Amino acid sequence: MSPTPRALERLLQEFTKLPGIGPKTAERLVYYLLKQPKSELEAMAASLAQVKDEVLTCTSCFRFTDQNPCPICTDSRRDKTLLCVVAESQNIPVLEKTNAFHGLYHVLGGVVSPLNGVTPDKLKIKELEARLKAGGVKEVILALNPDLDGETTALYLAKIIKPLNIKVTRLARGLPVGADLEYADEVTLENAITGRREV
Amino acid sequence: MSPTPRALERLLQEFTKLPGIGPKTAERLVYYLLKQPKSELEAMAASLAQVKDEVLTCTSCFRFTDQNPCPICTDSRRDKTLLCVVAESQNIPVLEKTNAFHGLYHVLGGVVSPLNGVTPDKLKIKELEARLKAGGVKEVILALNPDLDGETTALYLAKIIKPLNIKVTRLARGLPVGADLEYADEVTLENAITGRREV
Repeated sequence: MSPTPRALERLLQEFTKLPGIGPKTAERLVYYLLKQPKSELEAMAASLAQVKDEVLTCTSCFRFTDQNPCPICTDSRRDKTLLCVVAESQNIPVLEKTNAFHGLYHVLGGVVSPLNGVTPDKLKIKELEARLKAGGVKEVILALNPDLDGETTALYLAKIIKPLNIKVTRLARGLPVGADLEYADEVTLENAITGRREV
Repeated sequence: MSPTPRALERLLQEFTKLPGIGPKTAERLVYYLLKQPKSELEAMAASLAQVKDEVLTCTSCFRFTDQNPCPICTDSRRDKTLLCVVAESQNIPVLEKTNAFHGLYHVLGGVVSPLNGVTPDKLKIKELEARLKAGGVKEVILALNPDLDGETTALYLAKIIKPLNIKVTRLARGLPVGADLEYADEVTLENAITGRREV
């Protein structure tokens, strides 16, 4: 049995470290890359090596950005009384696309998840408190995933924010567009009933 | 609407070029990488930049290897009268694991696929002919995928090899281990019937 070339094996290992990439997918990617011109691989390598240096973190909202403070935090047209709390930087573009929110953001950097070793002190919660205590914010919208960790984090944050006399809301639960009542799960349907709105 | 940082956008584009990686998967990978220590990213970048230089192609069988000629081609214990033709280098480790084959290999570098612009002259078919004409090979096993392109390639190769008075065989078709007759498709079942063997 003849081994895989060492350099190839090393690259395979690098790829299998990525989330959701198993040994088979890594193999497909690496053999694909090996067939590409060297310039392509060098471009990708350069991008990888530079990304950490070139991408900044906004010291106000903690999202990834080109400028610090980021263009959202410095935009004078945005409503500074509304603060939307998200788990990750990548949640912001999706919310921005809706055009339904014109306030500021705060990125936690994850959700409270004791099983995965993520305790509240590892998130930007202290920083959120400081921002709220500085005044001006009237409502905090918790835009977290509707799952166990998201719920835990929302409850934890609500407990901290409410004593500051700031309104705390969360994204509505109910049927997504295009859903079929017949296939909706019980919890979603329950949320849709309890959260019903007058037409 | 605030844009994604440029360096991040660039890395996203590099990842979406990879086969089977869509914009969402690329986003997941890139944001994951951004949270890793810089040393991790640099290690991956170095691996990527080096892989093309360090991985050699065996000038005899055309597989990726650390040494040229590769350890299989130079192994005196292997049966030089048997030649197994595969489409890609990565097919070899799987065949080696079976321990059912002890001959030499020949990597085509793909399969004939006119729709994808892969004509026979783009594959190592001339080189295969030269190897066979040099003499010594008694049987060529075509280990190609049992799909349209694999079949086309097998027929094309058989037409070239048979006039050289060399036996041409292909991998057996039939039911895979653990299959359920009830769910087997017609072609597989037909292959299993026509290729039946005495117990």
